[in-house]
Amino acid sequence: MTDKLKLKGDFTLPGEAGYEDLTLELAERWGADAIRDSDGTVLSDKIIKADYPIYSTICLIRADNEWAKANRDKLQQNYLMSDPVIAEKETVEIDLLKGFFREQFEVNANDDPKSWWQAFDRTTGEEVDKKDWIFDPANGTVAIKNVQKWHKYTVNFLAYRIWEGISMYNHITNDWGDQEHQMPIDPIYPAAQQAMLNYLKKWLDEHPRTKVVRFTSLFYNFAWFWGDPSIQKFRYADWGSYEMTVSPRAMKLFAEAKGYEMTSEDFVNNGAYCSSHNVPSERLWDWMDFMNEFVVSFGRKCIDMIHDAGKAAYMFYDDHWVGTEPWGKRFTDLNFDGLIKCVFNAFEARLCAGVQGVKTKELRLHPYLFPTGLKGEPTFMEGGDPALDAKRFWANIRRGLLRAPIDRIGLGGYLHLVQDFPDFVDAIEHITNEFRTLKQFHADGAPYTAPLKVVVLTAWGKWRSWDYVGHFIPGVEIYEVTESLAGLPVDVSFISFRDILEQGVPEGIDVIINAGKVGSAWCGGEHWKNAKVIEAVTEYVAKGGGFIGIGEPSAIKHSSQYFQLAHLMGVDREIGATMCNVKLPVAASKKHFILEDLEGEINFGKDIDNIITLEKDTDVLIEKNGSPQIAINWFGKGKAIYLSGFKFAPENSRLLHRALFAAAGKEPEYSAWTCSNVRTDCAYYPKNKKLVVISGSDDPEMTTVFMADGKSIDVNLEPHGIQIYDV
Amino acid sequence: MTDKLKLKGDFTLPGEAGYEDLTLELAERWGADAIRDSDGTVLSDKIIKADYPIYSTICLIRADNEWAKANRDKLQQNYLMSDPVIAEKETVEIDLLKGFFREQFEVNANDDPKSWWQAFDRTTGEEVDKKDWIFDPANGTVAIKNVQKWHKYTVNFLAYRIWEGISMYNHITNDWGDQEHQMPIDPIYPAAQQAMLNYLKKWLDEHPRTKVVRFTSLFYNFAWFWGDPSIQKFRYADWGSYEMTVSPRAMKLFAEAKGYEMTSEDFVNNGAYCSSHNVPSERLWDWMDFMNEFVVSFGRKCIDMIHDAGKAAYMFYDDHWVGTEPWGKRFTDLNFDGLIKCVFNAFEARLCAGVQGVKTKELRLHPYLFPTGLKGEPTFMEGGDPALDAKRFWANIRRGLLRAPIDRIGLGGYLHLVQDFPDFVDAIEHITNEFRTLKQFHADGAPYTAPLKVVVLTAWGKWRSWDYVGHFIPGVEIYEVTESLAGLPVDVSFISFRDILEQGVPEGIDVIINAGKVGSAWCGGEHWKNAKVIEAVTEYVAKGGGFIGIGEPSAIKHSSQYFQLAHLMGVDREIGATMCNVKLPVAASKKHFILEDLEGEINFGKDIDNIITLEKDTDVLIEKNGSPQIAINWFGKGKAIYLSGFKFAPENSRLLHRALFAAAGKEPEYSAWTCSNVRTDCAYYPKNKKLVVISGSDDPEMTTVFMADGKSIDVNLEPHGIQIYDV
Repeated sequence: MTDKLKLKGDFTLPGEAGYEDLTLELAERWGADAIRDSDGTVLSDKIIKADYPIYSTICLIRADNEWAKANRDKLQQNYLMSDPVIAEKETVEIDLLKGFFREQFEVNANDDPKSWWQAFDRTTGEEVDKKDWIFDPANGTVAIKNVQKWHKYTVNFLAYRIWEGISMYNHITNDWGDQEHQMPIDPIYPAAQQAMLNYLKKWLDEHPRTKVVRFTSLFYNFAWFWGDPSIQKFRYADWGSYEMTVSPRAMKLFAEAKGYEMTSEDFVNNGAYCSSHNVPSERLWDWMDFMNEFVVSFGRKCIDMIHDAGKAAYMFYDDHWVGTEPWGKRFTDLNFDGLIKCVFNAFEARLCAGVQGVKTKELRLHPYLFPTGLKGEPTFMEGGDPALDAKRFWANIRRGLLRAPIDRIGLGGYLHLVQDFPDFVDAIEHITNEFRTLKQFHADGAPYTAPLKVVVLTAWGKWRSWDYVGHFIPGVEIYEVTESLAGLPVDVSFISFRDILEQGVPEGIDVIINAGKVGSAWCGGEHWKNAKVIEAVTEYVAKGGGFIGIGEPSAIKHSSQYFQLAHLMGVDREIGATMCNVKLPVAASKKHFILEDLEGEINFGKDIDNIITLEKDTDVLIEKNGSPQIAINWFGKGKAIYLSGFKFAPENSRLLHRALFAAAGKEPEYSAWTCSNVRTDCAYYPKNKKLVVISGSDDPEMTTVFMADGKSIDVNLEPHGIQIYDV
Repeated sequence: MTDKLKLKGDFTLPGEAGYEDLTLELAERWGADAIRDSDGTVLSDKIIKADYPIYSTICLIRADNEWAKANRDKLQQNYLMSDPVIAEKETVEIDLLKGFFREQFEVNANDDPKSWWQAFDRTTGEEVDKKDWIFDPANGTVAIKNVQKWHKYTVNFLAYRIWEGISMYNHITNDWGDQEHQMPIDPIYPAAQQAMLNYLKKWLDEHPRTKVVRFTSLFYNFAWFWGDPSIQKFRYADWGSYEMTVSPRAMKLFAEAKGYEMTSEDFVNNGAYCSSHNVPSERLWDWMDFMNEFVVSFGRKCIDMIHDAGKAAYMFYDDHWVGTEPWGKRFTDLNFDGLIKCVFNAFEARLCAGVQGVKTKELRLHPYLFPTGLKGEPTFMEGGDPALDAKRFWANIRRGLLRAPIDRIGLGGYLHLVQDFPDFVDAIEHITNEFRTLKQFHADGAPYTAPLKVVVLTAWGKWRSWDYVGHFIPGVEIYEVTESLAGLPVDVSFISFRDILEQGVPEGIDVIINAGKVGSAWCGGEHWKNAKVIEAVTEYVAKGGGFIGIGEPSAIKHSSQYFQLAHLMGVDREIGATMCNVKLPVAASKKHFILEDLEGEINFGKDIDNIITLEKDTDVLIEKNGSPQIAINWFGKGKAIYLSGFKFAPENSRLLHRALFAAAGKEPEYSAWTCSNVRTDCAYYPKNKKLVVISGSDDPEMTTVFMADGKSIDVNLEPHGIQIYDV
């Protein structure tokens, strides 16, 4: 019954000079229709002249190191908070770069510190009067006088980055020795823009065979501050935040555009910086909007030049993507032809697939062709099993690909490493064929999606759809939840509190999800003190809407409740203020529509404890040590479901899948095109009447697929297997 | 070597009519020198006329029910917060007593609600304009108009208590049937005072044989709100809080005395009330001071009358003690002769022993002579083992008695129940003899106490020394810690943040302990935002002081740190704001002075996770999942020790004992008069050269006692055993 479709194309192969025969052989075997270079590899003439379109990588901000060296005042910069110093006498001296990597950072002594820096008493949280501190450029120190004895002092200062982060990482990781450090220049300066355009023009002339110019990526890297290596290699890393876009010139332009000035503390934020996990302030939104406009505007000039040269422009959606905002309103204006995302998980596939305004979406699969993985584990070396890695990653990603179309896939790294791993070569051959089959099904028509619209409510909303702020962080509820959602046959989108304040809860929504820890951007933080938000969500549920709260939904210490939607969920959390209030007894009923298919105990990982029920008729399904883990509460015509945590796992994804239908009051519509076995998923493509059944399991699995007409099919699946039926 | 001391006296026996022979036989066997009645028992003439001093109980506020019935407007009252109601249209109607026990409460319709009540929008936290609500006395409801749809509304209202809590509990628990409900009258009214004095006068005349009048106790019970029995029996209980002292008259007198008015919300506090776990506001301190002055002033009149009748006055330090404040500055003014505390644990023995201004301190031992214990477990009935219970409780309490003197012990309940439990009778005989021996040693001279002064810093300070706010609540760090401290040979006292602000850290302190969860009164809550507190504690440590932080010491979300003393401890807690800041690696060293004597793994119970180290040289001794459980950090000449939690257990008490010496930098002075086996304790009484060694274990134990001269003694102890040596 399985289709044995075999197509060609839609695959990007990393070529490698010195291994021309291997390159061309695997290009044939894997059906490649494009060959790329990688950071640290070059393509030989033999490869370039073979009949394959060539992808070439370019990173304009670090491309011309001569220009950078001649224009050190135009290097990129960022604010750092110095390590705190406790005042032991009347003055404090602070060595600004102490604890940071001095090969990455250099104090900016060009722009007047008194205009751009701030010193803080972090004991009180108050800024130190600018008269009371002085910068010593020779020593890179700040002396603060008139301090309060025993208080803690820090300085927010500007530092140039004198080594570009991604090349620094590759240099150090791959031991490139005394190769010159590449420095990042900042296109905020017109002279730097001109230099970059000049470089690009020349580069385009010199790469006539290149068909696709792959930016890795545009101008500003994700925030990545390194530490003094004798203490700690890394200090701060966030794949989505804007710390590395800052400069006095940008701040001046911002003030002109927005009518007010940003301060260093807007970015330093008590040393927590503006991490994606923290709720963005209105000021930060303005800054991001400003930088997004700038990046898109100058980016478009570069892309136009590429198009004028008859080439396509692709963007790598991992490094230096900050400011492009693929889910923002201006991304279309960049006019990119393609977007490439490196993926481990289904949510990343959805992240890439969902971007508007770009024709070709490509996934870079793991494992990369490197000896070790990102965490240093063996891959293409003794002890590694890259074929199994590839199958497992693919099984994760495929859940997302069943739901949303992607145009291309590919690999990266050093091709010669696959020579010792023939089962990896086989595995990729299978994967490429599966991919092309699924792509064709999507091309024929969209898969069946249940009539169930889910929105995930976060402080970021659409701007951080599928929560791309870094790699999957286990235990952060939003990641665990979106990874589950990424493979479910429901309609998923992301909204922000700003959206709700501006337009209310959108029409036609069946379920709102709010998940996360108190104070996080995912949960919503201070937004939950806004009565307008409470009104909107409460009215929506009262009128029949569904709500699923996970972890600490709607949590903030405010007034008489901790969960500000406690009245909807029928539960709240004891955080110590009501220790003497006697709690209602909890009796778990353990039987419910959403618990069907579950075999063992619920495991939400490290979930939230001390949950209390507020109403006698709150229905607790599962409890742990007297604290509800799953509770259901009616409110008006609607329903709210509380989950004390969430961990991506087959049984939990199923639980969430059913909970969505229960919250929406659409239980009868659940079963169409679902599987009995939680370790399997399926998708039905009505246009061509294809049913695809997949397994994410390392073992053989049996499953029954329930079709829309009430009939069912029993299916056997190999480990990580796929079966395709005409139904 | 063990002394076989056998003394008489210092023991109070509960007599029981109908069991005269048993009463007198056990009085002889246990060496009783006083016989008491109990709630629900009477003493027969035969007992009264035997040659024993008689203790008689009296509770003036519920003694004269006829007067109470005739003066229902002078019953005691309190504020309640109604259960929240969500506005679904333009008006909201709230049934005030819904969810409360209507046999305990009656809405006060006498005092103008508009003067004394408040309605709140609990969604915003704002008070509703008084024009917008109206009370309907006929239905006991409040109607609120002009509400914000979907907001949550509550009303703070005054309720009379129409059934006195302690007699209500005894009535219901012991099934007293249709016996009339006793109502509590409020001595704030001069007429009630006069009625109480009249009653007392008459009562004294009618009880010529009574030698000791035992108050159970004075006027205001601990806060105890009961619920609608169809939902939950209890709603709120706090053994130390002042909710049940409130009345319009008291509030008017307060305003006259203090110059400002309290509001209902000062007591209701968002429905959390003013539980002892919450940081008291300055307004609450004023209220407590005002009530304390009143209770002492009128209490003294009653006690003077008793003294004039030639009798002694004792107070039961459990029920109706609110306002007396045995650790406050006015307790001496009450002129009580004795204080009786019901005890399970060592900290309660210390609580009683430490009170100033009263001559006789007596402990009421557990188990009470009731068929079941406080949690309903079998005691004097089939399945119970009251002898073992008695030995275990005694072993707990005895740790405290080694350190601090108590004058008497006794039992309560129904004496006839012991008839079927001869081993219980034996156990009590042993206990009474041990008690008298220890009392005699204390009388000869104080035991050796190490030269180490510890203060426990809480928002309550001395006022809640030994943290008496209820029974031991497992998991609340402060209880676990004080129970350990109660048996250690060090000098322990309690100070508040107000003390530090007024006088700084007291001279001569070796170690400050701060223990608890963020926001709790034990930790300190908002006090940690006060820079003066940070300055004082930091300077103290810099100059050589020791600090031990347990759980979330000095925690509050403020400025750049969560633990406001993070700079002292070298650790802080990740609460989500700095998720993207890379943490220092944690490597536990596992060897240290404070870990000696430890056999297995550390178990602090449910301790605090996500602890991070801030300094490379913070010394982590034990970690769990990468989160330090024990860390030591030098600051200036002093040292801070962080413990992620605490649970009272022999090995943890030892760890704390050693940690105190380590924090103080007095390790060399640790060993004098300590035991090798953590399940044993000892005390040395230098005046009479007696060494007492005790075991808290259910098994036989061997231990080595290290004496001050470096010599040691090996000791064998029976389960819960004691050995006494002349050394």
